Amino acid sequence: MDALAAAATSPSKFRRLCRLNEFHEPTTASFSDGHVQANLIILPERYAQDFRNLCMRNPVPCPLIGETRPGDPRVPEHLASDCDIRTDLPLYNIYKNGKLAGTKNNISEEWKSDSVAFLIGCSFSFEAALSANGFTPRHTELKRNISMYRSTVPLMPAGVFSGRMIVSMRPYAGDSVERVRAITRPFIQAHGEPIGWGPEGARALGINDPDGTHPDFGDPSEIRDGEVPVYWGCGVTPQQAIIDSGIEGVVVSHAPGHMLVLDLLVKDVCQTK
Amino acid sequence: MDALAAAATSPSKFRRLCRLNEFHEPTTASFSDGHVQANLIILPERYAQDFRNLCMRNPVPCPLIGETRPGDPRVPEHLASDCDIRTDLPLYNIYKNGKLAGTKNNISEEWKSDSVAFLIGCSFSFEAALSANGFTPRHTELKRNISMYRSTVPLMPAGVFSGRMIVSMRPYAGDSVERVRAITRPFIQAHGEPIGWGPEGARALGINDPDGTHPDFGDPSEIRDGEVPVYWGCGVTPQQAIIDSGIEGVVVSHAPGHMLVLDLLVKDVCQTK
Repeated sequence: MDALAAAATSPSKFRRLCRLNEFHEPTTASFSDGHVQANLIILPERYAQDFRNLCMRNPVPCPLIGETRPGDPRVPEHLASDCDIRTDLPLYNIYKNGKLAGTKNNISEEWKSDSVAFLIGCSFSFEAALSANGFTPRHTELKRNISMYRSTVPLMPAGVFSGRMIVSMRPYAGDSVERVRAITRPFIQAHGEPIGWGPEGARALGINDPDGTHPDFGDPSEIRDGEVPVYWGCGVTPQQAIIDSGIEGVVVSHAPGHMLVLDLLVKDVCQTK
Repeated sequence: MDALAAAATSPSKFRRLCRLNEFHEPTTASFSDGHVQANLIILPERYAQDFRNLCMRNPVPCPLIGETRPGDPRVPEHLASDCDIRTDLPLYNIYKNGKLAGTKNNISEEWKSDSVAFLIGCSFSFEAALSANGFTPRHTELKRNISMYRSTVPLMPAGVFSGRMIVSMRPYAGDSVERVRAITRPFIQAHGEPIGWGPEGARALGINDPDGTHPDFGDPSEIRDGEVPVYWGCGVTPQQAIIDSGIEGVVVSHAPGHMLVLDLLVKDVCQTK
């Protein structure tokens, strides 16, 4: 599908394509322009309160947008109309006892009477704003996956869940950092402004990769002359915390880059002040 | 005033005593049993959105309970009825250009047409629950101030505000930690469960004081045989972040231990699940 057609696909049409298994693009990033896309985590109900608290206590890497009722696969109507969480994402990762057990485009078999789905904000929301302001992220320019690092910053623990914050990195000219901060600041439900930048920020986060060529996850970046690394909270954080917790049973997430496209508009969840 | 009379003083009666300058006890800790007490920060409106974001991005050390409208000194009715933020705390600290400039029992002169007051949850809420369950905090037993440390954990920055998380420490037997975590977990608007404990927790927070005798703020504690330090988010964090930010103009906070007593009941803001 070409870029204009992708951007113009309505969220409900997009979800119908997923449901019919007719969406096979490598990422949802450029689809349904202006609509919020969400990371997905599905857990057994007995871990739901701890996970909800993990999100409430760590809203920068884990901004909770909404959740389903236990056993009920319908996404709340105000987020996405007529949306079935079992079929309306293009691709899912399935974890059993903390290990990746497979990838599917339909998780009707994995959805149980005690399953709860959590929807978490995603950086696609603010990346569109960066590009629109002339700050196209490097990984977009290079057509690569974003660079991610496991920082030394401890998550605020919540019951069975703890871990370290995972951050995404985009390089920008040193004198652009304040502008980049201001552009992403309003996206409070999508990681918001950066959490650190430059050599001092890297030190505070326990990251030592001045060239941006050795990330812990994703693809290498390029930090060019005059540029500094800028770090944001990253939605891989809750996924990694769940895997590291070793909780029993089946956990489902979106496959990387394959988000749930909501009806919710980015401009309606963005601070206007 | 004796302990029973203090515990039984209604919040509105307590606030009236403050307004008439008739409250001269060293702390509000034991007053108006079962009601939420709050830390206070008053800022010029031009910093309000950044400060609100600081709280939203760091809810464990900075749990925002409510705020006033700019220039309007009335606390929202659902938090405290007929409450004037300029007079209804027993004692205030006044900062000018980041330096402590004085202490007053009435800040009518400092309240301006652009002042905004923020109310932030306080550990008094969960300390009562710890004591009721046989886990009386050490500093209560020793009749001292709580021990506090400046951790190496970076705050999630928000506009002009950044800094490091400040934590409070209470020692407990190693095999009590899970019980202590569970007791304080529901107090989501009052720092909630601990953020680290034991030698590993101390390392992750960058704290090196195994005997608990050299805190950065407050009084020394005593970590006894078989005990480990347990660290919680601390409401001094936002105060310190504001002082460190060097913002211009007048900032007012409660004086240490001299909180605003709200009508709000602790049990009504506590998770029940």
